[in-house]
Amino acid sequence: MIDLTIALSQNGKKHLYEQIYEHIKDEIRKGKLKKGEKLPSTRSLAQFLQVARSTVELSYEQLASEGYIEAVPYKGYYICGIEGLLEIDGAGCGLDYSKDCTLRREKPQRPEEREEQEGKEEKEERAAGKHWYDFSPSAIDMTAFPYSTWKKITKNILVDANSEMFASGSPKGDWELRETIARYLHSSRGVNCRPEQMIIGAGNDYLLMLLEKILGRHVKIAMENPTYKRAFQIFASFAYRISPVSMDTAGMCVEGLRESGADVAYIMPSHQYPTGIVMPIGRRMELLRWAAEKEGRYLIEDDYDSEFRFKGKPVPSLQASDRGDKVIYIGTFSKSIAPAIRVSYMVLPRPLLEVYEEKCFFYSATVSRIDQRILNEFIARGHFERYLNKMRKIYREKHDRLLYGLKGLEEYFEISGENAGLHLLLTAKKGDKEEELIKKAASAGVKVYGLSEYLVGGRTAQNAAVILGYAALTGQEIAEGVKRLTEVWKH
Amino acid sequence: MIDLTIALSQNGKKHLYEQIYEHIKDEIRKGKLKKGEKLPSTRSLAQFLQVARSTVELSYEQLASEGYIEAVPYKGYYICGIEGLLEIDGAGCGLDYSKDCTLRREKPQRPEEREEQEGKEEKEERAAGKHWYDFSPSAIDMTAFPYSTWKKITKNILVDANSEMFASGSPKGDWELRETIARYLHSSRGVNCRPEQMIIGAGNDYLLMLLEKILGRHVKIAMENPTYKRAFQIFASFAYRISPVSMDTAGMCVEGLRESGADVAYIMPSHQYPTGIVMPIGRRMELLRWAAEKEGRYLIEDDYDSEFRFKGKPVPSLQASDRGDKVIYIGTFSKSIAPAIRVSYMVLPRPLLEVYEEKCFFYSATVSRIDQRILNEFIARGHFERYLNKMRKIYREKHDRLLYGLKGLEEYFEISGENAGLHLLLTAKKGDKEEELIKKAASAGVKVYGLSEYLVGGRTAQNAAVILGYAALTGQEIAEGVKRLTEVWKH
Repeated sequence: MIDLTIALSQNGKKHLYEQIYEHIKDEIRKGKLKKGEKLPSTRSLAQFLQVARSTVELSYEQLASEGYIEAVPYKGYYICGIEGLLEIDGAGCGLDYSKDCTLRREKPQRPEEREEQEGKEEKEERAAGKHWYDFSPSAIDMTAFPYSTWKKITKNILVDANSEMFASGSPKGDWELRETIARYLHSSRGVNCRPEQMIIGAGNDYLLMLLEKILGRHVKIAMENPTYKRAFQIFASFAYRISPVSMDTAGMCVEGLRESGADVAYIMPSHQYPTGIVMPIGRRMELLRWAAEKEGRYLIEDDYDSEFRFKGKPVPSLQASDRGDKVIYIGTFSKSIAPAIRVSYMVLPRPLLEVYEEKCFFYSATVSRIDQRILNEFIARGHFERYLNKMRKIYREKHDRLLYGLKGLEEYFEISGENAGLHLLLTAKKGDKEEELIKKAASAGVKVYGLSEYLVGGRTAQNAAVILGYAALTGQEIAEGVKRLTEVWKH
Repeated sequence: MIDLTIALSQNGKKHLYEQIYEHIKDEIRKGKLKKGEKLPSTRSLAQFLQVARSTVELSYEQLASEGYIEAVPYKGYYICGIEGLLEIDGAGCGLDYSKDCTLRREKPQRPEEREEQEGKEEKEERAAGKHWYDFSPSAIDMTAFPYSTWKKITKNILVDANSEMFASGSPKGDWELRETIARYLHSSRGVNCRPEQMIIGAGNDYLLMLLEKILGRHVKIAMENPTYKRAFQIFASFAYRISPVSMDTAGMCVEGLRESGADVAYIMPSHQYPTGIVMPIGRRMELLRWAAEKEGRYLIEDDYDSEFRFKGKPVPSLQASDRGDKVIYIGTFSKSIAPAIRVSYMVLPRPLLEVYEEKCFFYSATVSRIDQRILNEFIARGHFERYLNKMRKIYREKHDRLLYGLKGLEEYFEISGENAGLHLLLTAKKGDKEEELIKKAASAGVKVYGLSEYLVGGRTAQNAAVILGYAALTGQEIAEGVKRLTEVWKH
């Protein structure tokens, strides 16, 4: 049995669970706790340390979600090798897509068609007086947004508005806002950056366009498969060669990445879209090592909804572990504030910052200074933090309601991605077809989203899977929607 | 003598000068007035039509600026061949740069360096208690901006702000705003477009990036030489092959364009930057014919400051004459409202609109919906028009003050670009060196801008030339600045 004598401090500066978490993490990192060793049970450690069992559970969950330890059903918690997670997880590849799948470029729908179709559906619904339960994974809840605060800030900013504010600002964005965001990212995501490294832009799509100018045109990019479709479309429009790389339960397979011959990998380590996988520390380290092996290799970390994590403390960003200037960190306020706030940020590693300043400094800013000032006030005065805390609570309630409602389907589906983010993934255990699941759901007035939509290679998933986004639905709608799904999906 | 019996209507619907202008224009277009024919003198036509002489002068100036007629010193006004202006103007090539000049890509200054340098200059000025007269061609006058109106609109919009306004909107921009801008462009610039053809974006740079995705990567682009440096840098960053094409007094030489082998030409027909040349109708037609000759040829019309024209009525846009879906029209509110209002628009000809909807529809909007709504209100409620009229008056006064002040330098410089826009071009007649002119100006506390900065080919201008932008200076500053220039430049 491992010795876990931890000197806990009750001075209130740090949660007990955090102290336990940090102690064990340190022991693993120092190599004192070795791969394969078994941790004491939560009950016995709680007794030993004289703390509540739930405290130890929380520490273990945190360690497990970050990949330091692994829960083995009916056995207990085991230490993971922080550099060897690939071997451990290799057997359990839940998403085993071929590595060399060819690229499938579908003819995209025209916006008119889409609008028309959506219009038709809506009209039909209204005609039928039917309420439609849409589990959209991209929608968010704006009902609790502090509109009045936003208005007040805007008003105050405009009172002081002068010609300077209407003048063109720095191409990278206002210094104050970059400082504020850098501070926020450091405290909440562990991101290490100076404001100089940050570029503010009108949305991720624009920042990726700018990144194309920095990285150049002849890039072979690896993407997780399934992945965020929009990013795929954007990289395809750059005429980048795209290699979809298969994933196991720890995220992108490094072996596949290596075989792909890609220079750059686009990943979502904190909450992969759409699978919901949180990349453990071991895999992160492997990816960083892959990037360090060769000049010109980079990891694009899209940290799109990391604000919403429901168990333990936030998993730090990949950028936080980067010592080799290999991570391009991209984040947005579209999920955390509002889609219409067209503000995203990109943190460039130093070598790419130099390229930017050499080659791209002339691209003017894409966010108006007034909007930058409003956002800066919103964050700097603590409104953003308060809003995030409020939303975490709201989303957690919805999330729990959804998880609870899904109990009746556990026999038929494996539920994953449940620790973070605004959607869950349901993978069919019993050979259901995705198309059938979607059809059955629609017949009950529920809209769900098939995983295949997010697969960018030519292959399909082994098992059918659907995505349930819950952010924009009320608790009651979630309960009713899941009830209907249970009725039509049970067999 | 030509018969110019014009049935003038005094019902006030149309200015007399406009009626005369239109009558003569129609006669030229119909071929009733032929190339080389002499028009009656302004005095005799005024007597004949029983109108003020200044009315006829205005009509003639308008016709001359659009290239329908030509003023021959000490002789009078002659009809131009609307398809043959190249021959007429060929001899008078004021800007005769070699056509096959190789591309000079300077190492651009890093923003830090520039900021530092600017900082140093400013510091030195302040230390010396010296007032610096900066004739920057890119600065604008924001003192008359209706801040209170803007604030009021913002406030009203925010009162109604709801979750819909914070949701993500159409990638092309809000329909209402596109309708409003389309209406404005039709009435003020003759632009023919449906709102579907328009894409709103956060600045010209972004729209050019989007255009790259539409036109593809393998584009050879022709640019006027000298040209707008930022656009040059942007196209260079696209890895477009750039052919600088020489200009004569009518603008880009079509022969040079043809020889360049370019597919696309980037031009500023309404007020070329920095030369100030207004492209006459003949050259416009020639360019449109060039584009029509081959599929895939396009003209990018950057209509960056067409709002400010000081003689006669505005020259219509090139897009207004386009019958073959060959013009990509780009405009911005950076000059006409404020640089910080990050809103530009691009009107796509139908074939490119199809490409956009096939390949680029997924790029999200870059302007927030709230900002779009504010701008829409500002234009739709007539504030924009009123502001433009106010600014035209302000700029015209400054413009006239500058022209008046330059009288003492007429012996040494040819002054051009004086009919429109926010800057003038002074071309040395007596062999001055650009560098010397700039140095001498600086010694007197005046900052002027050398034309060579805008030359993108390897050659230099035959004659030194400097640009004087006057928008951001007060009338008094202009008078004092020009007085100092006269003192140091006279010899």
